Amino acid sequence: MFKLITSHRSVIIDEMLRFIEGLKVEASNITSSKWYFDAIDRIYLFSTSGKMIRGGLILFTEEMFKGSYSKDGVYLAIATELLQSALLIHDDIMDKDMIRRGSKTIFFQYKEIGDKEGIEDSYHFGESMGICIGDIALDMCFSAVGYLSNVKVINRIIKKFGLELSIVGGGQMEDIYLSSSNYIPTEEEIISIYKMKTSRYSFSLPFSLGAILSEVDDSVIKLLESFGDDLGIVFQIHDDEIGLFGNQEAIGKPIGSDIKENKKTLFLIYLMRLATEEEKRRLSGIFGNEKITKEDVETVLNLIEKYKVREMVLSKKEEFANKAREKIKLLPVEEKYKKHLFELVDYNLSRNK
Amino acid sequence: MFKLITSHRSVIIDEMLRFIEGLKVEASNITSSKWYFDAIDRIYLFSTSGKMIRGGLILFTEEMFKGSYSKDGVYLAIATELLQSALLIHDDIMDKDMIRRGSKTIFFQYKEIGDKEGIEDSYHFGESMGICIGDIALDMCFSAVGYLSNVKVINRIIKKFGLELSIVGGGQMEDIYLSSSNYIPTEEEIISIYKMKTSRYSFSLPFSLGAILSEVDDSVIKLLESFGDDLGIVFQIHDDEIGLFGNQEAIGKPIGSDIKENKKTLFLIYLMRLATEEEKRRLSGIFGNEKITKEDVETVLNLIEKYKVREMVLSKKEEFANKAREKIKLLPVEEKYKKHLFELVDYNLSRNK
Repeated sequence: MFKLITSHRSVIIDEMLRFIEGLKVEASNITSSKWYFDAIDRIYLFSTSGKMIRGGLILFTEEMFKGSYSKDGVYLAIATELLQSALLIHDDIMDKDMIRRGSKTIFFQYKEIGDKEGIEDSYHFGESMGICIGDIALDMCFSAVGYLSNVKVINRIIKKFGLELSIVGGGQMEDIYLSSSNYIPTEEEIISIYKMKTSRYSFSLPFSLGAILSEVDDSVIKLLESFGDDLGIVFQIHDDEIGLFGNQEAIGKPIGSDIKENKKTLFLIYLMRLATEEEKRRLSGIFGNEKITKEDVETVLNLIEKYKVREMVLSKKEEFANKAREKIKLLPVEEKYKKHLFELVDYNLSRNK
Repeated sequence: MFKLITSHRSVIIDEMLRFIEGLKVEASNITSSKWYFDAIDRIYLFSTSGKMIRGGLILFTEEMFKGSYSKDGVYLAIATELLQSALLIHDDIMDKDMIRRGSKTIFFQYKEIGDKEGIEDSYHFGESMGICIGDIALDMCFSAVGYLSNVKVINRIIKKFGLELSIVGGGQMEDIYLSSSNYIPTEEEIISIYKMKTSRYSFSLPFSLGAILSEVDDSVIKLLESFGDDLGIVFQIHDDEIGLFGNQEAIGKPIGSDIKENKKTLFLIYLMRLATEEEKRRLSGIFGNEKITKEDVETVLNLIEKYKVREMVLSKKEEFANKAREKIKLLPVEEKYKKHLFELVDYNLSRNK
């Protein structure tokens, strides 16, 4: 499955380049701004440096229902990858992350430009430029949707895009609030945030877009979206896991960033539920502490081992993986596509980056 | 004219409420997130607290060409007002502005929520929440465009929206860079930024959208956009002027914020061109200084008077107003509409808030 999705990567990249060249030509009738064209180039580079799973899923979904993907699907794939860029660029500002995909984050690139230019508050300069670039990526996502030729579905797709994107924003807000506060959320609250900030736009939306383009029944779209919800939850739980137990080189960010950022994960709440009062006090001094050491991360990992928290998280991840698998069985598609979807569930359960 | 535009305000507000209620119903099928629905309400309140000139201009333009506005025009008006909200919400984070339209800015509202909840870095919390809310407003703008019923023009409109929005982002980047650096731009560079960050989305885009909906000739759309460019430059130069000489209560922000923020305005560059070396040194200590006093603002105003800078700026503003007037004369519309457009030029030249 993973191979099947990424096999669409070069198609999306090629078409995105053409799309961006067209945008530049149109923009050049209005402006010759240096920063603007520089921004467009950075967005292209950033957008094409990812795995493009979301875009690939749209094309896969079309193939699953119609045997082949359409040009409209490619434009929606471009749009989806651009929105992913927008979200990540803004997310890195919120999380103060300096590294993404093994390279410097966009806002941090501008922070460094600020330093070079002798700008006093270069950090805020970087943040402001990053906010603009994220906005521009979202605007470009908008433009890409404008290329759809199937006017029968265009309204539905635009509304869908707008709605799902707004949901991500809400999920992000929930996440920020929880990371900033000492409140220990319930398991349901965490799962709800995973659905809002990961499942919907990363899985439910691409499946839905591919299905709408294929003009399949609403009931099938609903089933696919619900499958996407479960799949995204698996993806996010696994993401938490490799953030603690993964290979720093492979995941492209330091082990333990979630601890530093006080991200409210299943690991955290299970641990807090089982730890002694004294351990809880120690943990409270570690979670959300910007200056945590390797030893602090070790402490958390040891307690996770002591209370078999990883096993608990694994079992929750398997629960959602099984829900997802049950839904695949109900899909009215050929077995070979189901096989790919099962493999996607497995990939989300076990990927190392 | 101004009355004619704002007479559409209540139509836009009513329909925006209905649009937002619909969005909430759809979102409630996906989430029950407290912050999400709170965000939507804040965006509605913020969006309906403005003059709604941009939305009004779309409906006016349709009336000018077809005698009446359409439901599609109302949806585009909603979209345009939502995008204006998105831009302002993000802009206030970049400028660290606490007051907008006489009320607390959105990010600052969240900063205060953070304080109340005992969140340590409440300022960064406010910024992050503000980035999300701005993004959500942009997503909602996207959704509103999805309600267009005229599929003949929908592609063109979406592409137009995406392109012009990206241009604003670029203008904002230029502006941030200039505000952060000591470089004194040329008059042309300043005018170019005014066009990018004000004219295009505030005037050229609304005129263009109304004209596209009215299916008029491309040459007319081009003329209207060019008229919008000039009009926006007049608007922005006047905005700089009332930021220095206006009534603090009326404009809803402190006199001299542009000085504090080191905004590169025509006032600044003309002044720097004429000031003595000693005056320049004094001015350099004032522009961009977050802690400027009333006396500092007085110093700037006195030098502006000494060198008749206000007269120079006024003459530049008149130059663009005259260009705009010449373009009105060329428009293939009834005289009564031209009269309104002339009044709009006058309004942009002389408004006090």
